[in-house]
Amino acid sequence: MRIRVVNPNTTRAMTDTIERCARAVVGAGTVLDAVTSATGPASIESHYDEAMSVPGLLAAIREGEADGVDGYVIACFGDPGLDAAREVATGPVIGIAEAAMRTATHLGRGFSVVTTLQRTRGRAMDLAEHYGLQRFCYGVHACELPVLALDTDPDARKVVTEACRAAVLADGSDAVVLGCAGMADLCAHIRAEIGVPVIDGVAAATSTVQSLLTLGLRKSGRGEFATPPAKPYTGLLESFGSE
Amino acid sequence: MRIRVVNPNTTRAMTDTIERCARAVVGAGTVLDAVTSATGPASIESHYDEAMSVPGLLAAIREGEADGVDGYVIACFGDPGLDAAREVATGPVIGIAEAAMRTATHLGRGFSVVTTLQRTRGRAMDLAEHYGLQRFCYGVHACELPVLALDTDPDARKVVTEACRAAVLADGSDAVVLGCAGMADLCAHIRAEIGVPVIDGVAAATSTVQSLLTLGLRKSGRGEFATPPAKPYTGLLESFGSE
Amino acid sequence: MRIRVVNPNTTRAMTDTIERCARAVVGAGTVLDAVTSATGPASIESHYDEAMSVPGLLAAIREGEADGVDGYVIACFGDPGLDAAREVATGPVIGIAEAAMRTATHLGRGFSVVTTLQRTRGRAMDLAEHYGLQRFCYGVHACELPVLALDTDPDARKVVTEACRAAVLADGSDAVVLGCAGMADLCAHIRAEIGVPVIDGVAAATSTVQSLLTLGLRKSGRGEFATPPAKPYTGLLESFGSE
Amino acid sequence: MRIRVVNPNTTRAMTDTIERCARAVVGAGTVLDAVTSATGPASIESHYDEAMSVPGLLAAIREGEADGVDGYVIACFGDPGLDAAREVATGPVIGIAEAAMRTATHLGRGFSVVTTLQRTRGRAMDLAEHYGLQRFCYGVHACELPVLALDTDPDARKVVTEACRAAVLADGSDAVVLGCAGMADLCAHIRAEIGVPVIDGVAAATSTVQSLLTLGLRKSGRGEFATPPAKPYTGLLESFGSE
Amino acid sequence: MRIRVVNPNTTRAMTDTIERCARAVVGAGTVLDAVTSATGPASIESHYDEAMSVPGLLAAIREGEADGVDGYVIACFGDPGLDAAREVATGPVIGIAEAAMRTATHLGRGFSVVTTLQRTRGRAMDLAEHYGLQRFCYGVHACELPVLALDTDPDARKVVTEACRAAVLADGSDAVVLGCAGMADLCAHIRAEIGVPVIDGVAAATSTVQSLLTLGLRKSGRGEFATPPAKPYTGLLESFGSE
Amino acid sequence: MRIRVVNPNTTRAMTDTIERCARAVVGAGTVLDAVTSATGPASIESHYDEAMSVPGLLAAIREGEADGVDGYVIACFGDPGLDAAREVATGPVIGIAEAAMRTATHLGRGFSVVTTLQRTRGRAMDLAEHYGLQRFCYGVHACELPVLALDTDPDARKVVTEACRAAVLADGSDAVVLGCAGMADLCAHIRAEIGVPVIDGVAAATSTVQSLLTLGLRKSGRGEFATPPAKPYTGLLESFGSE
Repeated sequence: MRIRVVNPNTTRAMTDTIERCARAVVGAGTVLDAVTSATGPASIESHYDEAMSVPGLLAAIREGEADGVDGYVIACFGDPGLDAAREVATGPVIGIAEAAMRTATHLGRGFSVVTTLQRTRGRAMDLAEHYGLQRFCYGVHACELPVLALDTDPDARKVVTEACRAAVLADGSDAVVLGCAGMADLCAHIRAEIGVPVIDGVAAATSTVQSLLTLGLRKSGRGEFATPPAKPYTGLLESFGSE
Repeated sequence: MRIRVVNPNTTRAMTDTIERCARAVVGAGTVLDAVTSATGPASIESHYDEAMSVPGLLAAIREGEADGVDGYVIACFGDPGLDAAREVATGPVIGIAEAAMRTATHLGRGFSVVTTLQRTRGRAMDLAEHYGLQRFCYGVHACELPVLALDTDPDARKVVTEACRAAVLADGSDAVVLGCAGMADLCAHIRAEIGVPVIDGVAAATSTVQSLLTLGLRKSGRGEFATPPAKPYTGLLESFGSE
Repeated sequence: MRIRVVNPNTTRAMTDTIERCARAVVGAGTVLDAVTSATGPASIESHYDEAMSVPGLLAAIREGEADGVDGYVIACFGDPGLDAAREVATGPVIGIAEAAMRTATHLGRGFSVVTTLQRTRGRAMDLAEHYGLQRFCYGVHACELPVLALDTDPDARKVVTEACRAAVLADGSDAVVLGCAGMADLCAHIRAEIGVPVIDGVAAATSTVQSLLTLGLRKSGRGEFATPPAKPYTGLLESFGSE
Repeated sequence: MRIRVVNPNTTRAMTDTIERCARAVVGAGTVLDAVTSATGPASIESHYDEAMSVPGLLAAIREGEADGVDGYVIACFGDPGLDAAREVATGPVIGIAEAAMRTATHLGRGFSVVTTLQRTRGRAMDLAEHYGLQRFCYGVHACELPVLALDTDPDARKVVTEACRAAVLADGSDAVVLGCAGMADLCAHIRAEIGVPVIDGVAAATSTVQSLLTLGLRKSGRGEFATPPAKPYTGLLESFGSE
Repeated sequence: MRIRVVNPNTTRAMTDTIERCARAVVGAGTVLDAVTSATGPASIESHYDEAMSVPGLLAAIREGEADGVDGYVIACFGDPGLDAAREVATGPVIGIAEAAMRTATHLGRGFSVVTTLQRTRGRAMDLAEHYGLQRFCYGVHACELPVLALDTDPDARKVVTEACRAAVLADGSDAVVLGCAGMADLCAHIRAEIGVPVIDGVAAATSTVQSLLTLGLRKSGRGEFATPPAKPYTGLLESFGSE
Repeated sequence: MRIRVVNPNTTRAMTDTIERCARAVVGAGTVLDAVTSATGPASIESHYDEAMSVPGLLAAIREGEADGVDGYVIACFGDPGLDAAREVATGPVIGIAEAAMRTATHLGRGFSVVTTLQRTRGRAMDLAEHYGLQRFCYGVHACELPVLALDTDPDARKVVTEACRAAVLADGSDAVVLGCAGMADLCAHIRAEIGVPVIDGVAAATSTVQSLLTLGLRKSGRGEFATPPAKPYTGLLESFGSE
């Protein structure tokens, strides 16, 4: 069973963190690797970044298909390109936001999301709505650290932890969902500090992919998520087209 | 890691089927057993049966806690007693309806549920609504076989398979969720026959419990799902009270 | 016309309060009595208590059917066992939460619920959602008195009154729904004190049952709420089964 | 206790039917009368008719206040002028659509509405949505009889009965709500014919008003539904203004 | 292209403001006028006022049809009589609340509404719900100025501006919708002061009508919004009936 | 006033059609042009195509900003890259799906969407939900013509017309929304044929942009839709990054 975690930003250091956290939750028989997108933004902090990360992500999925990968995790909390990736892959593709938020629903009545910049809150709210989870999502909060500062700012751990503690208090929620793949390695620490379940989407999505593979489940080959129709592509993205 | 699947009806033959299907999806390091409720109805086919199955289910959970069980599956598609069981257990408790329906959302846009008797459709619709999944649940259909006939009627496999095929056509859905634990062993057959993903909740819930345990996630010890306050109980259920 | 109010906890003193409040709102031709459940918890303050109160409640309904009772009130704000009771009874069965919350919608735009313990808030929110009333339910607040303290704590009346006043202010609501049958006798006092409509579910549900009987309305004998299929029951609850 | 039923169209024969049906469900101590609007359309079959019926309705409510009436029923299924009437009256005002649809929720999972002309279906759907009952309203069907033909067309009873039977089949519903006050006297007949509960809003609303009065409940005197601010009115409706 | 803006209250000074603001946004080829209702309240500040403004509004629409008007704006934030007006007019009729709120959805994630009196907030919330915009409407706030004081109170501009500023802060919204036609001429000032988009419904609705006319779009002549069936009317409103 | 319509696929012939239809609805003072994306798929018929069209679209928007364009239309019914484009542009950006569906709500109670391939229906449903319009969207239907066949298949006009007629019948809808920019020039023909309003999103969105510009409305410069943070981009899309 081969699972690949795709970091859709181009920052390798973040991929390393992600890979470590994903690897911690798979079984002995599972081969897991993580790849860094070759095309796109160094971090994803806007709708623009997110949209522009998708070609690199889809290239990674196509490469994965060639490599015989069985299932994928999209390791960015905006779940960029999820529907398109599901068309391209034959096995399951799971976004970390959908996995984290769905996992949280098993642990209590409501959860808070703690994300990076204020401007990314909207995307998290859209996803909660899209997945039918708005009733369970009690609030989306920003800690106002840029994505890459999670790794470099010496106060990052403290800032995120306190934002999580404050979110639980403000929302009266039962759990916290970490709203950025770059927070994956803070999960155990925050959980210990604030005393409620804290969910890292990278681990949650990896575990979900492994579950689906074990259950023998994959998308139907027909309909909306079938392989996209082949057609010519032009310009910078010409190589993404097909005959 | 010890997982226990509770069959909340009192029919041991059904527990055997359930156990086999659950065991097929756990990892090498997981100890799994299935138990039959000692108290309640032989099958669950009404709101009355479902409500009356809960004391037996909760007794099984309490026994599990004494036995050091780490997580539980409630193997009836009505998810009976789920909230109460979450109060009693320290580890995760997952219902097969919630697990199956949430799993289905990863595989396509909409799913159909195929259940046993017409009169049980309402409960499935209530659960879809309660879990925020009504948008994904395109229809709930009855095959009009009583629960125990799934095991004894020689035509059961055919009847359920055809009901699934018809449901997909009628709803334009991408996947089928089997609406009874007693259908667990039909899953692979139906999937092969009708060519869309078919989800058995027993396997899905077992896999979800295993995931949560691997992720180190459990309910918060505070608030709504904390251990229920101790108090005297009277009459037939006196033994369920505590000081 | 015979109406029976069932107190699904086993505390007789609370039944007396309930009976008095119910009796105050029925017409001259109506025979009303209240019964105490013979089986289950002394008070209902958790999902566990609520689930375990249902067999006793259903036994009371079955007894009522034998006694020729025409309609029932379930006098606990969690509306425990409502769907099952509707299957068993031939006449109307009304829960005090559904009656109180629906009544409140006739009196203004939004209502607040004031309940006992914090941990019971979730159930009230689930019911508001289930009845389609979440838009009208502006908030659910706990006064942090245990159910039985409503009768024994000398400050109870004051504590609940102040919680109601605070809820109206916090929510900007037009009315208060009392979230526990044990608060029934506080209703007139609180209404006088805080100057907005206050709804006691016991009175509201009793009145609703009387209305339905007067209108000649009862559930359809077919479909989801028809008499449950007969079947063997095992263990402590064996007597609840049938041939 | 004085209850007044207002027929907001100007057809006295319809008021007579309405009065008879309302009177059948009130208690011995209740004085009930029905009045015909003095201003507006002969029947209400469009948004235009409905809007134009409101001044006459509100005049009737103002007259009722002068006469010491305790509560009101608005006997048109569009619930015309309900919010305004609640501002004007000190006691409860109930529309027959809200009463009928809320009553139906106690009798099963879903109801069908059978109304007169196709063009009135939209209003019924808007009301179901507005009252939070869209999940319970399985369909709105027209029998294509104009309102006044209910009284004069010799086939009316048969046409409406068959429309109700067809609606239950098409929707898989548990009950029928009659979508016009002019159908009030058909209720018992249809119920007997089609074997599911049939709800007449005139009776349901009358009974609801009586309940609220018995419970001592009325709108809060503050806020949205307080007496409208006095001000000058001009033109045809000058007499509706105040100093 | 002839557009008529109807002020459904009877205060001519307010019509003048409205006309000026509407005229500022139409193209060279468009003839625009504004008319004052001849019947009804001097201002609209309650459900009662709103309902009673509708006959005057509909008279103005009928007059417009006789005058060959192509499209209409209803210049009151309660969108009074909108459905009825659509039946009567052959061209588009747009309410200022629907236009303003829909326009706001193009400018950011969420908007606040700032209205006049507290008691009018409910109507704005109902409209947001009715138009499917409740998710975008982050709050409805009152500035507690009566409608006519907008024109006469020397502090009006300041009071409304500060209410808008406070609403944006409290709601975390991206834009403000002015909740009264009488605020139309404050729009540019407030926008400049508070630095977020501010939408005046009079301008927005006028522009929407012009768009629809340019696009050649009008309601279907069939079904719910077809011309109302002719019938006799009685009393004060007799002239509104037809053969 | 300069408006630019961006065709996010790379087929110039389709841009020509789009430009003609857009130009027909703008005022004399408006300069309108249409551009073809330089990068991406020849047509958009899958989530994959849609995601891959976004870089080309955003490049066109950036170019537009350099050219001093005041507002933009995204001429693909999936509204690809809308949120990202709003961050990049200083003026309004409108998608044809949002414009068409919102316009349809002014014309009747419910609309049908007629799109190209079956597999694109899901995106249209997601957008209806996202814009809060699911209650108004009665159905999404495919005519099973590929996008480019709209221009080349001699039967295209007939096929789409008949699909529209069938959709109105099946859904009982009041209007049709054309679900592809390539259908823009069929709009008048279909409207004439089927006798209900038919909305072309290209015209609707162009008109909406012109309205917003006339109203002086643009997004707030703060928050979610502010200019994206500058950062390095890598690989094929390196030129999209900034310092």
